[in-house]
Amino acid sequence: MEITDVLESLKIGKISVSEAKKQLALYSIEKIEDFAQIDMGRKHRKGIPEVIFAERKTSDEIKKIIQRVLEKSDSVLVSRIQKSDYTKIVRFAKSKKLKIKDGKNTTTLLIHKNTLKSTGGTVGIVTAGTSDIGVAEETRLTCEAMHCNTITSYDVGIAGLHRLFPIIKKFIEQDIDVIVVAAGMEGALASVVSSLVNVPVIGLPTSVGYGYGEKGVAALASMLQSCSLGLSVVNIDNGIGAGAVAANIANRARRQ
Amino acid sequence: MEITDVLESLKIGKISVSEAKKQLALYSIEKIEDFAQIDMGRKHRKGIPEVIFAERKTSDEIKKIIQRVLEKSDSVLVSRIQKSDYTKIVRFAKSKKLKIKDGKNTTTLLIHKNTLKSTGGTVGIVTAGTSDIGVAEETRLTCEAMHCNTITSYDVGIAGLHRLFPIIKKFIEQDIDVIVVAAGMEGALASVVSSLVNVPVIGLPTSVGYGYGEKGVAALASMLQSCSLGLSVVNIDNGIGAGAVAANIANRARRQ
Amino acid sequence: MEITDVLESLKIGKISVSEAKKQLALYSIEKIEDFAQIDMGRKHRKGIPEVIFAERKTSDEIKKIIQRVLEKSDSVLVSRIQKSDYTKIVRFAKSKKLKIKDGKNTTTLLIHKNTLKSTGGTVGIVTAGTSDIGVAEETRLTCEAMHCNTITSYDVGIAGLHRLFPIIKKFIEQDIDVIVVAAGMEGALASVVSSLVNVPVIGLPTSVGYGYGEKGVAALASMLQSCSLGLSVVNIDNGIGAGAVAANIANRARRQ
Amino acid sequence: MEITDVLESLKIGKISVSEAKKQLALYSIEKIEDFAQIDMGRKHRKGIPEVIFAERKTSDEIKKIIQRVLEKSDSVLVSRIQKSDYTKIVRFAKSKKLKIKDGKNTTTLLIHKNTLKSTGGTVGIVTAGTSDIGVAEETRLTCEAMHCNTITSYDVGIAGLHRLFPIIKKFIEQDIDVIVVAAGMEGALASVVSSLVNVPVIGLPTSVGYGYGEKGVAALASMLQSCSLGLSVVNIDNGIGAGAVAANIANRARRQ
Amino acid sequence: MEITDVLESLKIGKISVSEAKKQLALYSIEKIEDFAQIDMGRKHRKGIPEVIFAERKTSDEIKKIIQRVLEKSDSVLVSRIQKSDYTKIVRFAKSKKLKIKDGKNTTTLLIHKNTLKSTGGTVGIVTAGTSDIGVAEETRLTCEAMHCNTITSYDVGIAGLHRLFPIIKKFIEQDIDVIVVAAGMEGALASVVSSLVNVPVIGLPTSVGYGYGEKGVAALASMLQSCSLGLSVVNIDNGIGAGAVAANIANRARRQ
Amino acid sequence: MEITDVLESLKIGKISVSEAKKQLALYSIEKIEDFAQIDMGRKHRKGIPEVIFAERKTSDEIKKIIQRVLEKSDSVLVSRIQKSDYTKIVRFAKSKKLKIKDGKNTTTLLIHKNTLKSTGGTVGIVTAGTSDIGVAEETRLTCEAMHCNTITSYDVGIAGLHRLFPIIKKFIEQDIDVIVVAAGMEGALASVVSSLVNVPVIGLPTSVGYGYGEKGVAALASMLQSCSLGLSVVNIDNGIGAGAVAANIANRARRQ
Amino acid sequence: MEITDVLESLKIGKISVSEAKKQLALYSIEKIEDFAQIDMGRKHRKGIPEVIFAERKTSDEIKKIIQRVLEKSDSVLVSRIQKSDYTKIVRFAKSKKLKIKDGKNTTTLLIHKNTLKSTGGTVGIVTAGTSDIGVAEETRLTCEAMHCNTITSYDVGIAGLHRLFPIIKKFIEQDIDVIVVAAGMEGALASVVSSLVNVPVIGLPTSVGYGYGEKGVAALASMLQSCSLGLSVVNIDNGIGAGAVAANIANRARRQ
Amino acid sequence: MEITDVLESLKIGKISVSEAKKQLALYSIEKIEDFAQIDMGRKHRKGIPEVIFAERKTSDEIKKIIQRVLEKSDSVLVSRIQKSDYTKIVRFAKSKKLKIKDGKNTTTLLIHKNTLKSTGGTVGIVTAGTSDIGVAEETRLTCEAMHCNTITSYDVGIAGLHRLFPIIKKFIEQDIDVIVVAAGMEGALASVVSSLVNVPVIGLPTSVGYGYGEKGVAALASMLQSCSLGLSVVNIDNGIGAGAVAANIANRARRQ
Repeated sequence: MEITDVLESLKIGKISVSEAKKQLALYSIEKIEDFAQIDMGRKHRKGIPEVIFAERKTSDEIKKIIQRVLEKSDSVLVSRIQKSDYTKIVRFAKSKKLKIKDGKNTTTLLIHKNTLKSTGGTVGIVTAGTSDIGVAEETRLTCEAMHCNTITSYDVGIAGLHRLFPIIKKFIEQDIDVIVVAAGMEGALASVVSSLVNVPVIGLPTSVGYGYGEKGVAALASMLQSCSLGLSVVNIDNGIGAGAVAANIANRARRQ
Repeated sequence: MEITDVLESLKIGKISVSEAKKQLALYSIEKIEDFAQIDMGRKHRKGIPEVIFAERKTSDEIKKIIQRVLEKSDSVLVSRIQKSDYTKIVRFAKSKKLKIKDGKNTTTLLIHKNTLKSTGGTVGIVTAGTSDIGVAEETRLTCEAMHCNTITSYDVGIAGLHRLFPIIKKFIEQDIDVIVVAAGMEGALASVVSSLVNVPVIGLPTSVGYGYGEKGVAALASMLQSCSLGLSVVNIDNGIGAGAVAANIANRARRQ
Repeated sequence: MEITDVLESLKIGKISVSEAKKQLALYSIEKIEDFAQIDMGRKHRKGIPEVIFAERKTSDEIKKIIQRVLEKSDSVLVSRIQKSDYTKIVRFAKSKKLKIKDGKNTTTLLIHKNTLKSTGGTVGIVTAGTSDIGVAEETRLTCEAMHCNTITSYDVGIAGLHRLFPIIKKFIEQDIDVIVVAAGMEGALASVVSSLVNVPVIGLPTSVGYGYGEKGVAALASMLQSCSLGLSVVNIDNGIGAGAVAANIANRARRQ
Repeated sequence: MEITDVLESLKIGKISVSEAKKQLALYSIEKIEDFAQIDMGRKHRKGIPEVIFAERKTSDEIKKIIQRVLEKSDSVLVSRIQKSDYTKIVRFAKSKKLKIKDGKNTTTLLIHKNTLKSTGGTVGIVTAGTSDIGVAEETRLTCEAMHCNTITSYDVGIAGLHRLFPIIKKFIEQDIDVIVVAAGMEGALASVVSSLVNVPVIGLPTSVGYGYGEKGVAALASMLQSCSLGLSVVNIDNGIGAGAVAANIANRARRQ
Repeated sequence: MEITDVLESLKIGKISVSEAKKQLALYSIEKIEDFAQIDMGRKHRKGIPEVIFAERKTSDEIKKIIQRVLEKSDSVLVSRIQKSDYTKIVRFAKSKKLKIKDGKNTTTLLIHKNTLKSTGGTVGIVTAGTSDIGVAEETRLTCEAMHCNTITSYDVGIAGLHRLFPIIKKFIEQDIDVIVVAAGMEGALASVVSSLVNVPVIGLPTSVGYGYGEKGVAALASMLQSCSLGLSVVNIDNGIGAGAVAANIANRARRQ
Repeated sequence: MEITDVLESLKIGKISVSEAKKQLALYSIEKIEDFAQIDMGRKHRKGIPEVIFAERKTSDEIKKIIQRVLEKSDSVLVSRIQKSDYTKIVRFAKSKKLKIKDGKNTTTLLIHKNTLKSTGGTVGIVTAGTSDIGVAEETRLTCEAMHCNTITSYDVGIAGLHRLFPIIKKFIEQDIDVIVVAAGMEGALASVVSSLVNVPVIGLPTSVGYGYGEKGVAALASMLQSCSLGLSVVNIDNGIGAGAVAANIANRARRQ
Repeated sequence: MEITDVLESLKIGKISVSEAKKQLALYSIEKIEDFAQIDMGRKHRKGIPEVIFAERKTSDEIKKIIQRVLEKSDSVLVSRIQKSDYTKIVRFAKSKKLKIKDGKNTTTLLIHKNTLKSTGGTVGIVTAGTSDIGVAEETRLTCEAMHCNTITSYDVGIAGLHRLFPIIKKFIEQDIDVIVVAAGMEGALASVVSSLVNVPVIGLPTSVGYGYGEKGVAALASMLQSCSLGLSVVNIDNGIGAGAVAANIANRARRQ
Repeated sequence: MEITDVLESLKIGKISVSEAKKQLALYSIEKIEDFAQIDMGRKHRKGIPEVIFAERKTSDEIKKIIQRVLEKSDSVLVSRIQKSDYTKIVRFAKSKKLKIKDGKNTTTLLIHKNTLKSTGGTVGIVTAGTSDIGVAEETRLTCEAMHCNTITSYDVGIAGLHRLFPIIKKFIEQDIDVIVVAAGMEGALASVVSSLVNVPVIGLPTSVGYGYGEKGVAALASMLQSCSLGLSVVNIDNGIGAGAVAANIANRARRQ
């Protein structure tokens, strides 16, 4: 019951003061809860889908969670799926008439109920090497779940700058809103890209590389130290995080 | 000379084949240089001002560089100015009829020739404690140099969440485009803010704190590990970097 | 033989000076041993149960140690039990008419002979995510072995603060003595909880998280750096340690 | 205006529905603010005094903050006072008829308006060496500000265990509630003390020591790794944090 | 041929100047080689046995190396033997009439041809916990291979100092030359032992422990930082190194 | 009064049973104290002199402590003396008719009352470079305070192995008991020396060097990793620790 | 079509201005691409072969890539081949009439079409221990793929310097151009070798060793800190990198 | 006396067998010394000049060492000269008729007796920023001391790749032998340069940069991780080391 209703009811004697007090108390509690639950709304407005970490879960557990999540929202990302469970989950989703988007070399699946409408936001995604593709695909699926278009170009390296120029040109032509650069080893590609474009660049260090600075540490350090202004960074291998940041920026740029 | 001109001139016999070859070679080189020099244009388009690191420079050297930079661009950030040089540079700028924006507890100055027009992009800046203000002011000056509006709220802490809610409400009311959160010690404020809003948040860890995780390391780690999707990070104390990323995002969101 | 006895015996000629000397030497050694063995009594008084690390032990070895320990004390914690040994040990304990308390997602078992009487000490245990539950359950079992009541609330996150408030209210209503906060990744929950309550809070960083600050390092650093006074910390994944500290505090608060 | 008043006023036609709505909205906002401002009350109930970090503040600034804080609370800790400012602040406090507690080798001062009443809570504080005294004194002053008694014993070392036994005996005789152990270098004293007593022990690593494990890192690691259950830890040199935790535990143990 | 011989032969015309020159050149080279090969003699004099790292070697390869080594020396240590190879190698050694010494929980074997005569040097070896025994046994076998007596006492902990005193007394009574203390976790036992005895103590940190300071890092740091003079350290888990240092010291103390 | 005396006195009726009991209780307490105070005797027997860290002490404070220490012992090491205090303390010692030993480039002084008698124990001390001399001199003074002879050879490097051979030969000729190798940067000298001699070698890493592995970290790591058995290590720049270990070994080797 | 041709064609009316323009635009683009693709030529001129990381690839995938690469270049290095795939790939290469070079204890294969002609460049490769051989063999195969001669000497240690001198003499006699030193543990061999020769030395730290400084960290630090000028370093276990640098230097030294 | 002489003298009875033996022994010793002292010759042949670290030396001490060194060699590098001593040493060198080469923003001086003849070896030196110039100048002076030509280009950055291409072209035109790349912050320039040239590249990380990866750590890690084969690295700020390696390579490439 809305406040006006309560007050009107009280005024015309339909309810007692005591009953009105109770109704208002309930209303007040709901208000506080609304306020606190702002987060729920936020998630929805932001368009960030639910993420299920499949690691250490059986395929049956995963299926149940997928169903529960899709009761309330339109899409769900399932990440870190074990190889043996991948086909099981795909089959399950199809049997439930759900739509699926998968990626190359990645353990992540995007499952959704309806065709994903585009906001017009466009995210460019490049990787330095082929080993970075799995993480970049997580980024792509996250962006798509958040209703962005994506343009990807994998394995441009910096040991071969000549492969980079055409991509940058394409990104500029397509009026891209933001670029995610996934790179391991020395991670220099993020700096180089950021020095060539005028949109925000998200550095996504990957755990590729060995020896000193291994596991993405050199890539992370190098991206944080970048001389090229306009570059921000997410954690090593955090493809979903990079996707959420990028889609967030792109969607804001395209909001009406 | 344009290609058509060269070719026409050759056709009508005005120039020799050899001269045409030379002209085309020159043209070709200029083309390559144009391509390579794309960076110059980029800087200008991005609106990132030149930054002068005053550290280890005499006030005379700084003055000379300011003048040289302002011949080509409209504004310049001078950072890490020694205390004793601060008033000297302010006085110098005023004597040259330049405009100045300074900050609280910061060693950075923004010097510009004309009134800075706003793009409409709006950046919110909050700090966890009073010690983070100096770095946050660098962010504010960078945003202003990049033609953004800024709304700041310093010292909201997380040891007193009640101070945070009104600010978040204000940010939402003002339709802010992006928020920069400067925080040292455990750096948790960035996660908390990111969980309450639906715009991109830039974590700016500061070198406040001592003991284990000192010098911003705990804040950086905590921001990179954040469970709250939508948060990206710049390096410790990199106030200018955070400002450039934020203004970049805000300006893209407000471009026509 | 007590000193007085020795001396009396000597006085009445029942024993020789030499025999008296020997008896007194023995007595003296026992005295030193008493002093040194103060530790044994301490353990008992503190109520900290014996802990068996099952790792690298066969189920038969574990069974033997359980029996040996339970000859002298009323309860024993068995931690890090391999999956395959878990049911074996449960079955063994039941066959010996022993009582069992187990936990969710944990490799720890509490085995005891008699019903555990409560001291009235009450420990609240919260986790940031579902992955922290196993470690938190170790804490709960340790507290119960030390005769404390426990109130648990798992997966409150900080990405959804609205889930935290009701729990804090419950803790306050139940007059809880101390709270253990198990959190991985950025570990910010410990700071937030500590800023909302007026009882001691024990931060229990867990090894959840990946990339920079992985394996609990970010959570540990963030808890040690906390701006919120009243928070102390145990080592990463040290659920038993957190339980022992918490129960120790709770029992002291409820001692008669 | 209370809810009942609003409703009664509405019922008797004293105020319009619209006015009632406004009053209730205001009331609702105040309710939310009350909820959020729970923190203010918490600080007061916990008895944790305000802490002023004097570092980078002029003595005049410090004096002003002291006055402002003491308008609202009874005591204030001023820490990290520069040598040259110490006497100035003492003199200032005396001129204002304020009471002062200072410490040995410490840059911290406790300033309070009235005699500090004891809760009966008792905290034992020991240091491994003379270099740890400054940090331990911060702990003592914090405990006293929080109305606890303290018993200190500095420089007991572990290179001379014979000095430790009498102190432990004294602590036991005085029915101490909690012990803080300040130790740098290898930090082993915390483990040893924790193995001898049955009250909670707070490890306070100090930045004493050089070479590998310097700056308190070895002491912190060693305390976190301790085999002795019942030990929790605060950050390196965080004397105030250790005091707040200890007083918190002691006061809970003595609450009526 | 000795120099004198060469010269005499030359003098009496038995050999030519050219032949003499060649002989002397060879002699000179042998001299240099003698000098350089001082190392071979050293190893023998020091009594350090050959060590075969069995890791990544097949049992057949190990057997061959054992035979080759024992052609030249009296004993050989085989370390890091895989479980499945252990019995094979024992059986092989027995079939070759070789003598064997093995250890508890260790992957190391000492194989020797003759009964090992004692130098009289005596090494005490203690461990903090049962998990340190495997490494300590490596130390014991190395000492025995170097002709020292050993007295071991495992699992004395520091959480129970009362278990330590009798051992120290025994060590003193047996006129021990040097003590090796194997300890993981906080590694405090080494400091405590060193503070109780007047012989050299070798700290042997082990990789026992988890969380911050895991893998022996806390133990190593704590031993290097020790306030107790007279303690030196070998690397984490380097049981053979500790044994070689200890036996070296003991043998020097007992040399005639 | 000895036990026998007490008992005899009791037997002949000279004292009462009650008086005997009291005497025996006191005796017992003294026994415990003796046991606990074993450390005092140990220090004396070990010959380790008292060490005064002059850092953060005024020259007057230092003088007082010197006097107090020399009341009970024959010698004292004063380390980390500020340049400005050095001559003051030397003058003071001379005015008190005390004997002095100082070192090159070191802030340490050895002050003693009587001529230091030699045990015959002989310690060799080498440094890799001239920058390591200050630390090595601390070692020399500690050895001399502990009644050992020392033979030093500074700046032998490994960039010039030819300088090393004559020293090693000298050490062997002089029947040295133990060698301390002080080295910063890559610290390889310790391994090389240990591979050339058959006495124990103590690695003393120094904080010389810059860049990666600076502050002695590379030297420490390299010494701990040494392939050359027979090498143990003390902490970075711990010249006194190295001296105490070495003298301890040498004195044990020369005990009668 | 070359520029001159275009221009001549235009001049004689064979092509139109528009056609000339198109041809020149194409030419210009090709020029830019040439410039950018300088890298392709560089690779070829440098003689660095393509490297295929076999890790995470099936043997069929590897075979395909080998074929594709060998269409364009004469040789290919396949590294990190799984044991089970090794023979498969060897067999495949033989069936295709390809030439093969393999190494000891290495997972790398060099496959080439024609006999590799030597540039005369000569690389010396030494290892400290037998465990370093696998990495050193990667270096050797890389050098051979780059047309250099190699002289290898494995397991010279520094615990036995006498084994080093003959090799150094051999290297000098063979007029070697550059030496690669592969060493784990303390990595001192690189410094020692660099101090004995007058050609460039490449330090190749390997991940051999355990405890503090494990995984090549001590070796890397020690090589970077080396006092011996003339030593540069590649990353831990980067055998191919070391080979490429060394062959590069050797080939430059032998270029005509 | 040569061997032949000795033998001839003996043969003709000019010296006795005993005298011959003595001469040959001396000769043999000299031979060993020659062998060991190979290092002296090496230094000379390598052309690496003596380096004096001026740090912690008075200008008088420095002057004395300069004179002593120049008695034996033709040139000397003095590094880390304090500002106040710089002019003093320059003046001193001039007064002694010595030649001087100094650098920009560097504390290093090259002092030599004669004009430095060039070997023809040519070293290219680039820096990423202006802050790297001081270290790069150390490299240049070292190369010149080692008789190499140098071509320098400072401040090419990677935030402006267009500045890099002309330099690379110049290096290629000048047939440079080796390139040193000095870069701090993210250090990416070294990778980029190495991917554009076919001569060896030496990465020289500098301690420029702050926050995570500060003090050259990010630059070092990024250079070691480089995907671009042909890059080796020296320690952070080790300008002299980089110069020695580079000159060594260049001189070998130009040896006759």
